[in-house]
Amino acid sequence: MDLEIVAIGNELLLGFTVDTNGAELGRALAAIGVRVTRRTTVGDDPSSIRAAVDEALRRTRLVLTTGGLGPTRDDVSKKVIAELYGWSFRFHDDIWERLVERFRRMGREPAPANRGQAEVPEGAVVLNNRWGTAPGLWFEGTPGIVIMLPGVPGEMRKLLEHEVAPRLAARAGGAVVLSKELRTSSIPESTLATRLADLEDELAPLSLAYLPGVRGVDLRLTAWNLPVDEARNLLERTAARLRAVVGDVVYGEDGVDLAAVLVSRLRERNMTLSLGESCTGGLVGARVTAIAGSSAVFQGGAVCYSNDAKTALLGVSADLIASVGAVSPEVALALARGARERFGTGAAIGVTGIAGPDGGSEDKPVGTVCFAWLLGHQEQEARYVFPGNREEVRERAAQYALHRLLRMAETD
Amino acid sequence: MDLEIVAIGNELLLGFTVDTNGAELGRALAAIGVRVTRRTTVGDDPSSIRAAVDEALRRTRLVLTTGGLGPTRDDVSKKVIAELYGWSFRFHDDIWERLVERFRRMGREPAPANRGQAEVPEGAVVLNNRWGTAPGLWFEGTPGIVIMLPGVPGEMRKLLEHEVAPRLAARAGGAVVLSKELRTSSIPESTLATRLADLEDELAPLSLAYLPGVRGVDLRLTAWNLPVDEARNLLERTAARLRAVVGDVVYGEDGVDLAAVLVSRLRERNMTLSLGESCTGGLVGARVTAIAGSSAVFQGGAVCYSNDAKTALLGVSADLIASVGAVSPEVALALARGARERFGTGAAIGVTGIAGPDGGSEDKPVGTVCFAWLLGHQEQEARYVFPGNREEVRERAAQYALHRLLRMAETD
Repeated sequence: MDLEIVAIGNELLLGFTVDTNGAELGRALAAIGVRVTRRTTVGDDPSSIRAAVDEALRRTRLVLTTGGLGPTRDDVSKKVIAELYGWSFRFHDDIWERLVERFRRMGREPAPANRGQAEVPEGAVVLNNRWGTAPGLWFEGTPGIVIMLPGVPGEMRKLLEHEVAPRLAARAGGAVVLSKELRTSSIPESTLATRLADLEDELAPLSLAYLPGVRGVDLRLTAWNLPVDEARNLLERTAARLRAVVGDVVYGEDGVDLAAVLVSRLRERNMTLSLGESCTGGLVGARVTAIAGSSAVFQGGAVCYSNDAKTALLGVSADLIASVGAVSPEVALALARGARERFGTGAAIGVTGIAGPDGGSEDKPVGTVCFAWLLGHQEQEARYVFPGNREEVRERAAQYALHRLLRMAETD
Repeated sequence: MDLEIVAIGNELLLGFTVDTNGAELGRALAAIGVRVTRRTTVGDDPSSIRAAVDEALRRTRLVLTTGGLGPTRDDVSKKVIAELYGWSFRFHDDIWERLVERFRRMGREPAPANRGQAEVPEGAVVLNNRWGTAPGLWFEGTPGIVIMLPGVPGEMRKLLEHEVAPRLAARAGGAVVLSKELRTSSIPESTLATRLADLEDELAPLSLAYLPGVRGVDLRLTAWNLPVDEARNLLERTAARLRAVVGDVVYGEDGVDLAAVLVSRLRERNMTLSLGESCTGGLVGARVTAIAGSSAVFQGGAVCYSNDAKTALLGVSADLIASVGAVSPEVALALARGARERFGTGAAIGVTGIAGPDGGSEDKPVGTVCFAWLLGHQEQEARYVFPGNREEVRERAAQYALHRLLRMAETD
């Protein structure tokens, strides 16, 4: 089943707003077997909206619009589309009452402009919006089907999930496009590709994409135009085959955060964690504490940016720093040991490096980061040179610090 | 001058990729007086590309395409558009040589599929791409103008800036759409709006938009369809008038980061900074150390997630925690004082709170955060209840912590 999207809003054309709805709709519709064949973005003027919707209906007879439903712009897009169906408007008391009630709960009163939101074309089905003020609308008649959704991403998403997707899935009932991602870290894309080269020839009908990012490379398997059960099974089986080859660098699936995986792994093992951070400046701690429930594991960390702070807070010997330099495996180890002792934890990480843009030397170029990890009786050290700008070096270093500790926790 | 965009790529329709190019093009083109009247997104198949470009040319005679220029998909979109002009292809030795050289620098050799990138329609102008492998193309003839740019955002941006914008600006030479943003924090949108109510009636022909985000509300002034000098002058003058009313909560303009403003303000004053963080878990430190050159100001911080850590690292009295609770202005103050003493700094911030989702009580609901700030002889405390989920509470708390210190540094 083919569908076209018409996104409405001057702010989209002017670039004040990035259209994230388009990608979200594409994925959600593909997953229920609806293929988006074209997306057209137009401004708020009636003639542009009318032309775009009319042309799209002629091509696919199934159109989904986003935006143009706010209280101030409401009338335009609704009116234009009602005209395509030859329908006039009717005031819905129940929509108005829900609106008044919603405003009352927020301690406000609806403005006169809000009344238009309760005006509905006579033949349209109202898609009740419990997450905002503008209801969605479903037009079905001689020109085809037009589904109007609000442009606010949160409201669009909820209406799509609860009102639109079930109705469309019932009609589509065919092949779907589904994907599954395995998240890897600490391995370059080219090395991953080499390790997976033999397997890649046998993946059909699935495709495999490498998606490199600052936190690692995601492997995306996609099943194209298969029945939903077959697609799910194939993705599961093939993901297991990939894991058999590169499982050592896979930390999770489908958007999971590495810090969340580490926190739950340490929690299962009743292991507490502390940090001694220099160049990451609190970023590793911020990653860990972003996870709800991390307080069961994380005791704290010392962010020792200056050399004095390394000595004062974590007892790193000033002589050691003077002899081997602040960016060295020895100081990383001293940071980790100091943190473990101060915070009394079972696991600890020490990180020290040069994030740039200044501070590099021939021996220790910008991007050089030294790590130490302690977990139970294990002790590991590493030195890496990460590519990228200051932000990327820090992100990569934080990710690497967390990933190596996870691998230690899993193999211990 | 009106222009239509045609974005090419199955991944855009399937939602694997969010189209950020569209917004970027919209802003950049508006700033040189080119109005984007429609954006059409199509897949990689020739008939869809041809139809979209042909229709767009008929409407505006000026079309910019993005995507569909990679080595594997090159031929399709280039061929389709060359056909609209009735042009055949010619192999360009110089493009090929640059390509071979580029691959050589990366230690690789071009694949056979790369040869197609050196094939150019005979009438097209090549827009040299120094940032990637696929050159841009400028078609100009009877059907109108088609500008083809690669879809990779970094390459698109560079070609737009260096090759396309200057050519288009020379032709447009008319009214532009420009905007300027003032960034505020620590004030709700409704309070801002009340303070600016009188001024708002006098802003025409500029418009004022309130853009609330987790780090504060940005005020965007936009000049619509004015000559470029007039637009710039009006924006400057009006921004100054806004500052006269709400300058106390404005920390910067046009996307500047609050932490960067604070770091340079402290640096000017030769003031060093340390942190005692609990609920933000390192986030304040990560914000500060994200700024290049922050090491001149930032000495370090203690992330004291557990109560024991507060006592062990920053000397917060265990009795105090037992009597008033870890989330209290008293403990925030003890964290700040402990940090200032440990790190020997002139300024310090203490933050302790309940980020959620658990841990709230009637007295101290989720979102409660207590702060203390020390700067020279100034000492301030505050307690706030921030709305939102765990991530938002932490982001808001970190922003508030930085903003209040900046205001102290500016008024001291």
